[in-house]
Amino acid sequence: MPEKMNAVVKTKPESGAEWLQMDMPRIQPDQVLVKVKATSICGTDVHIYKWDQWSQGRIGEKRLPQILGHEVAGEVVEAGDQVTRVKVGDYISAETHIPCGRCIQCLTGQQHICANLSILGVDCHGAFAEYFAVPESVCWINDKSIPPEFATVQEPLGNATYAVLGEDNDVAGKTMAIIGDGPIALFAVGVARACGVTGIFLVGKYDFNMDIGKRMGADHLLYANRDDVDRIQFIQDRTYGYGADIVLDMAGSPQALEEGFAMLRKGGRFTAFGVASVSPTAIDYNNGIVFKGAQVHGINGRKMFDTWFRVRNLLASGRLDIAPVVTHLFPLEEYARGFEVMMERPRASAKVVLFPDTDELAKAKARSETK
Amino acid sequence: MPEKMNAVVKTKPESGAEWLQMDMPRIQPDQVLVKVKATSICGTDVHIYKWDQWSQGRIGEKRLPQILGHEVAGEVVEAGDQVTRVKVGDYISAETHIPCGRCIQCLTGQQHICANLSILGVDCHGAFAEYFAVPESVCWINDKSIPPEFATVQEPLGNATYAVLGEDNDVAGKTMAIIGDGPIALFAVGVARACGVTGIFLVGKYDFNMDIGKRMGADHLLYANRDDVDRIQFIQDRTYGYGADIVLDMAGSPQALEEGFAMLRKGGRFTAFGVASVSPTAIDYNNGIVFKGAQVHGINGRKMFDTWFRVRNLLASGRLDIAPVVTHLFPLEEYARGFEVMMERPRASAKVVLFPDTDELAKAKARSETK
Amino acid sequence: MPEKMNAVVKTKPESGAEWLQMDMPRIQPDQVLVKVKATSICGTDVHIYKWDQWSQGRIGEKRLPQILGHEVAGEVVEAGDQVTRVKVGDYISAETHIPCGRCIQCLTGQQHICANLSILGVDCHGAFAEYFAVPESVCWINDKSIPPEFATVQEPLGNATYAVLGEDNDVAGKTMAIIGDGPIALFAVGVARACGVTGIFLVGKYDFNMDIGKRMGADHLLYANRDDVDRIQFIQDRTYGYGADIVLDMAGSPQALEEGFAMLRKGGRFTAFGVASVSPTAIDYNNGIVFKGAQVHGINGRKMFDTWFRVRNLLASGRLDIAPVVTHLFPLEEYARGFEVMMERPRASAKVVLFPDTDELAKAKARSETK
Amino acid sequence: MPEKMNAVVKTKPESGAEWLQMDMPRIQPDQVLVKVKATSICGTDVHIYKWDQWSQGRIGEKRLPQILGHEVAGEVVEAGDQVTRVKVGDYISAETHIPCGRCIQCLTGQQHICANLSILGVDCHGAFAEYFAVPESVCWINDKSIPPEFATVQEPLGNATYAVLGEDNDVAGKTMAIIGDGPIALFAVGVARACGVTGIFLVGKYDFNMDIGKRMGADHLLYANRDDVDRIQFIQDRTYGYGADIVLDMAGSPQALEEGFAMLRKGGRFTAFGVASVSPTAIDYNNGIVFKGAQVHGINGRKMFDTWFRVRNLLASGRLDIAPVVTHLFPLEEYARGFEVMMERPRASAKVVLFPDTDELAKAKARSETK
Repeated sequence: MPEKMNAVVKTKPESGAEWLQMDMPRIQPDQVLVKVKATSICGTDVHIYKWDQWSQGRIGEKRLPQILGHEVAGEVVEAGDQVTRVKVGDYISAETHIPCGRCIQCLTGQQHICANLSILGVDCHGAFAEYFAVPESVCWINDKSIPPEFATVQEPLGNATYAVLGEDNDVAGKTMAIIGDGPIALFAVGVARACGVTGIFLVGKYDFNMDIGKRMGADHLLYANRDDVDRIQFIQDRTYGYGADIVLDMAGSPQALEEGFAMLRKGGRFTAFGVASVSPTAIDYNNGIVFKGAQVHGINGRKMFDTWFRVRNLLASGRLDIAPVVTHLFPLEEYARGFEVMMERPRASAKVVLFPDTDELAKAKARSETK
Repeated sequence: MPEKMNAVVKTKPESGAEWLQMDMPRIQPDQVLVKVKATSICGTDVHIYKWDQWSQGRIGEKRLPQILGHEVAGEVVEAGDQVTRVKVGDYISAETHIPCGRCIQCLTGQQHICANLSILGVDCHGAFAEYFAVPESVCWINDKSIPPEFATVQEPLGNATYAVLGEDNDVAGKTMAIIGDGPIALFAVGVARACGVTGIFLVGKYDFNMDIGKRMGADHLLYANRDDVDRIQFIQDRTYGYGADIVLDMAGSPQALEEGFAMLRKGGRFTAFGVASVSPTAIDYNNGIVFKGAQVHGINGRKMFDTWFRVRNLLASGRLDIAPVVTHLFPLEEYARGFEVMMERPRASAKVVLFPDTDELAKAKARSETK
Repeated sequence: MPEKMNAVVKTKPESGAEWLQMDMPRIQPDQVLVKVKATSICGTDVHIYKWDQWSQGRIGEKRLPQILGHEVAGEVVEAGDQVTRVKVGDYISAETHIPCGRCIQCLTGQQHICANLSILGVDCHGAFAEYFAVPESVCWINDKSIPPEFATVQEPLGNATYAVLGEDNDVAGKTMAIIGDGPIALFAVGVARACGVTGIFLVGKYDFNMDIGKRMGADHLLYANRDDVDRIQFIQDRTYGYGADIVLDMAGSPQALEEGFAMLRKGGRFTAFGVASVSPTAIDYNNGIVFKGAQVHGINGRKMFDTWFRVRNLLASGRLDIAPVVTHLFPLEEYARGFEVMMERPRASAKVVLFPDTDELAKAKARSETK
Repeated sequence: MPEKMNAVVKTKPESGAEWLQMDMPRIQPDQVLVKVKATSICGTDVHIYKWDQWSQGRIGEKRLPQILGHEVAGEVVEAGDQVTRVKVGDYISAETHIPCGRCIQCLTGQQHICANLSILGVDCHGAFAEYFAVPESVCWINDKSIPPEFATVQEPLGNATYAVLGEDNDVAGKTMAIIGDGPIALFAVGVARACGVTGIFLVGKYDFNMDIGKRMGADHLLYANRDDVDRIQFIQDRTYGYGADIVLDMAGSPQALEEGFAMLRKGGRFTAFGVASVSPTAIDYNNGIVFKGAQVHGINGRKMFDTWFRVRNLLASGRLDIAPVVTHLFPLEEYARGFEVMMERPRASAKVVLFPDTDELAKAKARSETK
């Protein structure tokens, strides 16, 4: 094992990150050391990269320098003494939500909303590096048929899957409006399509992403920033006058929340996934929830590991093809290009995957070209 | 059958109602005529009695004169030609939500939130009368062991039961905060107690009602209008630090909604029953729903007729004793006293039951005294 | 309206049926008269056609002559006085389970297992005719985009859909073994595929039908009548060693029930749809249910009308293409050919659709050829 | 810490057990050492005590000598290096099902039916001793208000609770038949009563236990070994003709399974908890499951730790009083009396609790006398 490794590190309380040599991580007895094959940029990483107000409060200057990143696929190269489930050689990804294992949520199957959650790459060093250390408890052993550029995005794909399926998994033969056109919304379109949602209305803003949404299986594209169409009426006209059976908010804007509850049919399910941009948040509580008899599911993270099983099965079976969403492949060293692409507006990217090893990158590129 | 009957009638677009002789109702082929044994005053009746803004918009001057009331128990004395399920002599109560039978909700077991709902006593003549007409489709055949003063309040008791049990019926061995001390909240305490809720926190304002809450089985009384106790902390201290598994909002005030979401544990269920007094409504959407992974159930009416079966069983088995909530028994003619009692603040009443027939009243009084 | 119509009638207590002129049905006030566009042969019709022991007991000689058939699509040409939801001109299919509307099941959303169920074409005249009468309560208004040869098979397709989705609708990203290769099993393969089941193991016997299963989306074909493969092991090998998440029995044979419970993973769901051919039925109750923590769902009919909504959406959206299962199209007059095809072994048919009107038949043939 | 301790040990492959001095258990890094306050006799212990065929196969001569017992409450006196959730001084009980932590069940919230389950006191030394070692993963930290004689029986009480609540927790306002009068069935009566079951039919054989059932809240006692009453008809007569909404089989005899499915209403839930005494098992599969649209839940163990939370809350809140079921308190040394009492027929015992420490026994006796 080398003594040093390259990593993308936030060193100063300001925008940006540096490409530095760092000490190899030392694993705890309950951790494994993972050699990174692919890692991908999440919106959270962009917040930290920009060092915005949320990052300043959540991470803070004192913990710097910190390695960024949490979406990952790699190979276990060392395992702590207490590790029993995972072994050296396993090809893994990681659940980002590290649960305490002691609280009522952890003890009753809701670890993803653990009372004492710590987040990989936020509360500890992340995965934008050649190696990273992670507790065995959050390791997910990948199916070997899933290539690294897809295995690394299983974490946001899991968000999408949990958001689409909700707490009741009741989507087959139903209609769904998905509000937002970021990568998770685009994944959600694909999951909805693969899982029998029969009318998918994607509400977004950017042509590049809406086009991906179309390729992922959206039946109808509705532009949130255009006034030519009454979006609520449009959905009612295609749902026998009732509205969508299920609405997923993945935007969190006042407009999204206002329209989202209006798009929902009486007795339908509203998935509250997007973080509201205004807080406290104005909601049409009476008409949108009480009188509508709506079910609102707050969705955060992924069910451990129910969601991961489903994601694996959807990918490994070929039922779900996420290639259109994985838009950019870069060497890890060129992380700055990745962040630029992510921050560009109008949007012209979905998932950006980074590779510490140029051979892995070359293989991924070859796979994407033969599609 | 007599040609005329006495009834409590809203005749003019102003506060109050009149005791008038009205024509006997003529039933449609799909309706039954019911001789009223007992009828009770709902908050909605108070709105109409006051002729407040909601009533002016919802009912309007043009439909006057209209007989008030919708909570009822009585005997079927005539049945239309198309009536098959109910027969003359049946002792019935009525579901207030009259569904259209054609919409997606009606056709998939959500009739209570029918797209074209009409409401008994709001959209048509009500039950504050010696007789009233009602479609067979909303008749509920009562268990004969349930006396009229209890049978008439099964409709609000059904609200409470549906609100407590929610969509998943998962309450046994769980903790619950109930916000509000009106009659439905007090019923909810009793239902929660009967159904295995193991820690009931009642949040209210008025001593008279809080005392009823105590008798119905509340474990802890928390005054919403006092500052001596940190209500959120109080609940956390008695739930191993987590907060209540389930929160029922039956108040709808800004304070109730703010505290309600804060009282809920991560992954818990929030029942949105109370109509918010401010609309649009400010909610701590991010912390209260998204990050908390909360399930918010909008609850309206009663499940037809799942809720009614449970209510019947709870009452007929004696598991649930609602006597403490039925605080006032009056002759129907003295409806004005009933409304006064309902409007009094500080509250000193819960359910007020009215009897067209003084013999029935006398029997009810005798029953209440032997308790 | 004509006074007479042609129909396929069981006239004598023996095998076969006759093509007869019958009086036009007279509708009751709660019924509609339907001009049949397409009707299809169910296994139940075959039982009655053969006049086997079940038919002799269930229908009996006294009710003859009786028109056969219950799978149907047609146009409403007359409506009784009490009919409100359906109107003349509507293009409908019919739910076969005619519920009483009075029992606990009917009143709580389980009409399909009504305590006093009567069955169309079994307990009353059926739909193998130019016209038939049916209560409005079981009419399903079809989406006009669905052609008659598909609309008529929505009833068995609904069986398949309810069996696949079960009571919890939890199939997305899961594996499923489907035992049987009759038409409903083949439909189930298509529904499972459309709804995100990620590994579909079809266990059948006949090449003709197994080939349809493949075209409907089965991932693996397992022959129940060959010994070259250990079927249970085969499934374990492709489910990471655990067995199928869900098993649908649609065969009911001792072998099917023995293997079915063995194919199921611990904590999985077993759908009991096939009628057991031996009764009482020997089951590995301890290992298959108790120790396995299995959920066994008895499935009968279709949820009214939740299943119908989903079926309509799956078909109308194009997510589900059932063309491979609709193997034979005949004029109604040639019903005998249809029954022969259905009874042939080895099987060489799935759904046989009959058309009273040769123009409708010609159109259906044209559609099937352009596929 | 002493070097030796007293324990009840199976030493020879024959009936009985011995009171021996054994070495103190040495804990693994992931285990804790517990000083036993109370331990109780399960039916499984009786099987092992008798050394019946099941025990010979499941445990086998080679593993002897083995300490018996698995129901327990005690204090943690030592904790291994890897232990983090539990600490010295904690008052704990233990889940008997020790899950592997690696299989699909363990990773998706079904640890109680782990693919590689090992059972405390069956696959390793048990708790009929002054001390025992147990993995932290199955420790349950008790509420201190629950006395040891109740804390030790939380494991079978958890069986009863899971069996009553099933997978859907839907019991409030419903009727239930419970077949069996052993301790778990008697606990089930109490849980059903506490959780809002409104009609409880207990089907048993022995007066002593039926009397406890009455005290636990059964509404009706039906003797399985008497012919004076038609048990199925009796239940129908008290359920408006439909049968019980829920049936719990806790007997497993052919009669229980035959009657149980017949007692169930259409669309009801059947809990398969009792191990069938005959295998393969003859079931009225068609009428009892398929046509009835029944939900059969195989129930095994307790949900980890959802069931434990509910049990704790039911006991700690006082909602559930299990005193009538805890019929015998002995010193651990007098274990042989305990086994005799358990094996006696006709039954004259329910739970037998054993105390290594006579002071604890004295306190428990004092508590039981002040009841």
